[in-house]
Amino acid sequence: MAVSELFPNLRGHIDLAFSEPDVDALAACDVVFFATPNGIAMQMVPELLDKGCRVIDLAADFRLQDIAEWEQWYGMSHACPERVAEAVYGLPEVNRESIRSAQLVANPGCYPTASQLGFLPLIENGLAALDGLVADCKSGVSGAGRGAKVPFLLAECSESMKAYGVPGHRHLPEIRQGLERAADQPVSLTFVPHLTPMIRGIHATLYAKVEDRGADLQALYEQRYASEPFVDVLPAGSHAETRSVKGSNVCRIALHRPQDGDTVVVLSVIDNLVKGAAGQAIQNMNIMFGLDETQGLETIALLP
Amino acid sequence: MAVSELFPNLRGHIDLAFSEPDVDALAACDVVFFATPNGIAMQMVPELLDKGCRVIDLAADFRLQDIAEWEQWYGMSHACPERVAEAVYGLPEVNRESIRSAQLVANPGCYPTASQLGFLPLIENGLAALDGLVADCKSGVSGAGRGAKVPFLLAECSESMKAYGVPGHRHLPEIRQGLERAADQPVSLTFVPHLTPMIRGIHATLYAKVEDRGADLQALYEQRYASEPFVDVLPAGSHAETRSVKGSNVCRIALHRPQDGDTVVVLSVIDNLVKGAAGQAIQNMNIMFGLDETQGLETIALLP
Amino acid sequence: MAVSELFPNLRGHIDLAFSEPDVDALAACDVVFFATPNGIAMQMVPELLDKGCRVIDLAADFRLQDIAEWEQWYGMSHACPERVAEAVYGLPEVNRESIRSAQLVANPGCYPTASQLGFLPLIENGLAALDGLVADCKSGVSGAGRGAKVPFLLAECSESMKAYGVPGHRHLPEIRQGLERAADQPVSLTFVPHLTPMIRGIHATLYAKVEDRGADLQALYEQRYASEPFVDVLPAGSHAETRSVKGSNVCRIALHRPQDGDTVVVLSVIDNLVKGAAGQAIQNMNIMFGLDETQGLETIALLP
Amino acid sequence: MAVSELFPNLRGHIDLAFSEPDVDALAACDVVFFATPNGIAMQMVPELLDKGCRVIDLAADFRLQDIAEWEQWYGMSHACPERVAEAVYGLPEVNRESIRSAQLVANPGCYPTASQLGFLPLIENGLAALDGLVADCKSGVSGAGRGAKVPFLLAECSESMKAYGVPGHRHLPEIRQGLERAADQPVSLTFVPHLTPMIRGIHATLYAKVEDRGADLQALYEQRYASEPFVDVLPAGSHAETRSVKGSNVCRIALHRPQDGDTVVVLSVIDNLVKGAAGQAIQNMNIMFGLDETQGLETIALLP
Repeated sequence: MAVSELFPNLRGHIDLAFSEPDVDALAACDVVFFATPNGIAMQMVPELLDKGCRVIDLAADFRLQDIAEWEQWYGMSHACPERVAEAVYGLPEVNRESIRSAQLVANPGCYPTASQLGFLPLIENGLAALDGLVADCKSGVSGAGRGAKVPFLLAECSESMKAYGVPGHRHLPEIRQGLERAADQPVSLTFVPHLTPMIRGIHATLYAKVEDRGADLQALYEQRYASEPFVDVLPAGSHAETRSVKGSNVCRIALHRPQDGDTVVVLSVIDNLVKGAAGQAIQNMNIMFGLDETQGLETIALLP
Repeated sequence: MAVSELFPNLRGHIDLAFSEPDVDALAACDVVFFATPNGIAMQMVPELLDKGCRVIDLAADFRLQDIAEWEQWYGMSHACPERVAEAVYGLPEVNRESIRSAQLVANPGCYPTASQLGFLPLIENGLAALDGLVADCKSGVSGAGRGAKVPFLLAECSESMKAYGVPGHRHLPEIRQGLERAADQPVSLTFVPHLTPMIRGIHATLYAKVEDRGADLQALYEQRYASEPFVDVLPAGSHAETRSVKGSNVCRIALHRPQDGDTVVVLSVIDNLVKGAAGQAIQNMNIMFGLDETQGLETIALLP
Repeated sequence: MAVSELFPNLRGHIDLAFSEPDVDALAACDVVFFATPNGIAMQMVPELLDKGCRVIDLAADFRLQDIAEWEQWYGMSHACPERVAEAVYGLPEVNRESIRSAQLVANPGCYPTASQLGFLPLIENGLAALDGLVADCKSGVSGAGRGAKVPFLLAECSESMKAYGVPGHRHLPEIRQGLERAADQPVSLTFVPHLTPMIRGIHATLYAKVEDRGADLQALYEQRYASEPFVDVLPAGSHAETRSVKGSNVCRIALHRPQDGDTVVVLSVIDNLVKGAAGQAIQNMNIMFGLDETQGLETIALLP
Repeated sequence: MAVSELFPNLRGHIDLAFSEPDVDALAACDVVFFATPNGIAMQMVPELLDKGCRVIDLAADFRLQDIAEWEQWYGMSHACPERVAEAVYGLPEVNRESIRSAQLVANPGCYPTASQLGFLPLIENGLAALDGLVADCKSGVSGAGRGAKVPFLLAECSESMKAYGVPGHRHLPEIRQGLERAADQPVSLTFVPHLTPMIRGIHATLYAKVEDRGADLQALYEQRYASEPFVDVLPAGSHAETRSVKGSNVCRIALHRPQDGDTVVVLSVIDNLVKGAAGQAIQNMNIMFGLDETQGLETIALLP
């Protein structure tokens, strides 16, 4: 089947057809991307790695270093636990150097990308109280994938807002792992995802208590991301909107400390399908192969 | 101008026409509803009250008892500060008895309705840590009214999510006032409203730390609202969705304590135009005049 | 399973649970509604009719009198062709008297309801050229039902418009049958349905050439529907919008003859789930049982 | 004011600021684009032309050659009727050679682009009956511009479908002019635009009677547009969807002759803001200046 049949926007641009994945054919590639359901990549990755191929997994198989935790959240046994340790978590703003030489990259989830980028400057600088972080996240419906499921029909989820997975969502341990690495100590996080009636976009609203009310957080964030090509810290007083990143690989962040209180509110937006998935995977590939990191990723968001 | 010209759904149902408000004509009514911009009702209310008329104000003129605070948040001098004390805050689930005999009712705001109904059982029972409450609220665009403003054009706010008013929103002191009355002590609250790409609905996601992890919160909420005709506590494990109340006067509430931790997450949904505005005003009128409280309010939500 | 689990808006309003359909239990009812896929009702209807039960079928099994044509369009053999002749087509504005005494009513399709009500006054009065009618119809996504199919996911059909079934849609012969009955001669109709990014609503834009340019079509339409409780002819110069009937059983019609030419444009809007399905079925039941025709159907459209 | 303030997607990409238009400054440019309300460009164009500047007007000031007709539809006197004759109508698929050397290009309207591209192969080949063409067009809300008007608020036009301007829309004479040039005789056209609840996209559904039922229309269309970089004739049996061109300069066309009858249905989709406006203007500029016609226009549609 032609790819352009499933993606009619690609007519006239590519001639590719879908084909069955074959390990030998894949192994002939410099890099293989897995955009498969959780649990698929781990079946093929060891052989590909052994044959010298590099791998970027967009699913979750290699995101959690704690294998027991992974097996609990994903409800299956890990097929190659011995390869998990060598996987590099593909958040370039944290692990750029390791990604450069990685043979296996675990591309981050969409919520974890928006949430970690928003929290990290606070946590890396020891400014946030770690016992009560809150990540209230809103995602467009494309985050649920293209599977035919009733709750994601337009007639079911349009004109409605709801939280889901409040008792526990798989992205919770992933976000927590990233924050704990940055803090080098345990972090208590409440993560609530919401299904928002739009196609694309994640809006993470992050809450943290800060003790040092004198810190210039705006400057701190601007410095942290000054040389990052895909993180844009908005001017003080701004509100980030998801449409400003629709179709682009950018994460935009805005910072507030309402009424000069002790609670910081960070607004962090991405396109879940780009910086939250395919775009970040390309960014990782660019880093892995010594290409210009922004190559192929300079699309400007489509607005309106 | 015929009302049905502005509201084409009313063709064939009513013959009313819009008319200029006239104090004498209004004073002849048993009750006058003000659905006017902030600052209008307070100009006419004293005279109407003096003439024996009862008033329900859907705007904010009489919602805050602290007049200095009101003037600061609303940016104008109050026209009749001496009448504020007699206004009853029209949240029936809290003030039903006072509403019964009130001459002047301040109908609550939309965010304050959803947020207070969600927080109250915790706070009335002294279960929540009061120094770090978070209300992350999402509203449909109709909450912004029918004025012609660029940010609320479909082409601007559809397919996008954003927070607004993070430095401070007028509903913050209103919610805080209600929670402080229930707690009988100061409350620290962070309130972040978001503009959601849908017409109707408010989804309040509320976060509170609880010390007593043994409390049966589900039972507590069910008991608190057992006899309330318009508050529906969902079964444990549920997620409230705004479409389930679209067009109805119901507030639906769901409760979670993720991973049995110390953070409680309350999901509270209303239709901002019904329980968050006109429906609650009718409910207040019913109470004030000894009518059946649910009269005229039994519409079932339109789904899908 | 409780009905209110599948329809959360009904919590607190009904205690019904879904149950397996059983012919004997159904036969004990005064009337049975079939809201089943095409081909199901015809399996059970003969027995129900024989037992004296009255039936309203919301599917298409009994809509076409020409059984060969039905079998061609629906791709199956008819299970009870001998009962088709006694079925009354349930468009009250045409067949009210027959519906009154009908034992079996074929409830019209959504597109056919909007299209026939829009075309009928022209055709009944011999004003339209019958060799080139066009019905360009736009439907909300709920018209596709609640089945989990990829094209109806929000991420697939939101923010897009497309025609479908242009080579031939099952509602074409149904509309044509109704128009031919009114004309008492063959009719040539082009019918193109479109999937519109909204939940509810059908907008039929109907084109016909008229020979008698002097006819007062506005008066003609107003008279034709003067005593119809659920058809509202808008004032001259109006444009009908689907939101004006959202949730109501009303069909609103507006008429134009652009530039005083020979082409008449009729705009006809309904809620596909109400006048186009369940509401019309109730209307038919009311007629069949001598009840007030508007009973249970006086809901005003939800706007905005 | 920085352009990136009004268009937050442009942050980090451009440093431009809005400035007052000044004729001398503009005249120093090779080409000036007017994306102004109707009636503005014609005030400045003569001077710019006299100074040797080339002009592309995205508004309607120079689209109609019949000045009396223009003044009637646009409700004002034309400020430079003597310059209208030299304006080239900027539909490259028709006027590419004239555009090459044009000093003044009238960029086509959005509906006219989709409608003409869909009708032209039929009409250029004398295949369509010219006395009863129908163009039933559906546009996203961005077609109304960014002005703050109540009918285009999300709460007003989302979840609703309506026709507008049925008595007469300004794009009618523009489409008719293009078709009459192709036919070299008068054309009778009914044009009905509809407001569709989405941001971008135009779907034109075009109806024409053909006498020669034997003509291979699919081949005819494919040949007509074989060398056009921005017109894509879909395979027989297809349905064009607006999302397949969202953000791209492509017009996709699908053809049907339902039931092998004498009515041809053409489905023609564009992005109203790209091929229907800014993209086509760039395409015209590329042609005018001998650049590669597709330069800057190779963006692939954003899907989903």
